[in-house]
Amino acid sequence: MSLTLYSLCGTDPNRPFSPHCWKIVMALHHKGLPFEERPLPFTDIPKAEQGFSKTVPILRDGDQLISDSFKIALYLEDAYPDHPSLFGGEGGKAAARLVEGYSQTMVHPAITRIAVYDIHQMLGPVDQDYFRTTREVYLGKSLEAMHAEREAAIAALPAQLKPLRHMLGFQPFIGGHSPLFADYILFGALQWLRITTGSIHLPDGDPVLGWFERCLELHDGAGRLVA
Amino acid sequence: MSLTLYSLCGTDPNRPFSPHCWKIVMALHHKGLPFEERPLPFTDIPKAEQGFSKTVPILRDGDQLISDSFKIALYLEDAYPDHPSLFGGEGGKAAARLVEGYSQTMVHPAITRIAVYDIHQMLGPVDQDYFRTTREVYLGKSLEAMHAEREAAIAALPAQLKPLRHMLGFQPFIGGHSPLFADYILFGALQWLRITTGSIHLPDGDPVLGWFERCLELHDGAGRLVA
Repeated sequence: MSLTLYSLCGTDPNRPFSPHCWKIVMALHHKGLPFEERPLPFTDIPKAEQGFSKTVPILRDGDQLISDSFKIALYLEDAYPDHPSLFGGEGGKAAARLVEGYSQTMVHPAITRIAVYDIHQMLGPVDQDYFRTTREVYLGKSLEAMHAEREAAIAALPAQLKPLRHMLGFQPFIGGHSPLFADYILFGALQWLRITTGSIHLPDGDPVLGWFERCLELHDGAGRLVA
Repeated sequence: MSLTLYSLCGTDPNRPFSPHCWKIVMALHHKGLPFEERPLPFTDIPKAEQGFSKTVPILRDGDQLISDSFKIALYLEDAYPDHPSLFGGEGGKAAARLVEGYSQTMVHPAITRIAVYDIHQMLGPVDQDYFRTTREVYLGKSLEAMHAEREAAIAALPAQLKPLRHMLGFQPFIGGHSPLFADYILFGALQWLRITTGSIHLPDGDPVLGWFERCLELHDGAGRLVA
């Protein structure tokens, strides 16, 4: 058995930052599966595994190739049923899609507003061209204009985390007393923010900060290894 | 076995409208448990069951009394384990708290902005005084000022439903192929909007509208019985 995870990096391969790849790093540790991570710059992704996917994460497990973070999590749950569950049953598996929706439609845009210029600064020249073109079209403004609004974007982030804060009034993880893939979905988003900007920009005492720190401690501090 | 659900109404006891009570109406039907619903005006709630709770839903099950919609759902799952599950396992139970957080912190405020004046119009005079005082403090403006912004509030609702729309790209219910309590949490919110304003104000073709219509059909159309 040999597992390889293709993930995303800028010029420094020791600082992979993709939120979707971090979900799978945590999921593989959760399952107790050793793996080799191969971070790739944006424009090298289409060259990996004979152009298998335009996006990472891509997981190779022996002769299996899977892309898309949620599909990879489902694959791992099916392929390794005797390892710790990522979903805690069918209800948790189904609800994780709503958690993904919350993360991608409400948290990711808030993080993009903060981090987009910082991400650009982490990339090599060819990737910078690709990133600027695609993101400026998506955002409808220049990276420099986004950067000028960074403080306002940081101030707007806590409101997007209200659902998480509500949940933390009752339990330490989205998975309940211990984490599940739903936690890794939102951890991935904030880990992306942390690695690209140096902080998740939440005030001391915010329960979301406490939860994020608990996630950084998981699996022998796997998340904290990348600064 | 005799189940009684205390819920919330205005002057018309045939139009109970509380989002939290609708979660439990659906949960009781889901469990296949017959029950008697006793809708109460706001200011009669503290008189029910010797002042057991300031809020509804309150469920009486024989000599048991439970308040708070999530606690009632947990109670039903424990007390009736051989009836259809409301959570689909421990992962689903835990994730439902995040769904509750999303509903209450992102969807409820959007609905309140649309419906608050309409709710006031459904109430008797004593309840109207209570409602106006508490809500105007909470909202920081008069009910009439909120009513003047109703069209803008309706226009803002679809953005708050993006997580649900994302999920519906993969499956018909938050519970997966069939509904769970997580669906009833968000159904309750939109049913509250429907009963108090006559519509959920979403455009034809919105997948959220399709999901809501599917929920109205559940349990012999229990949700559609109240217009």
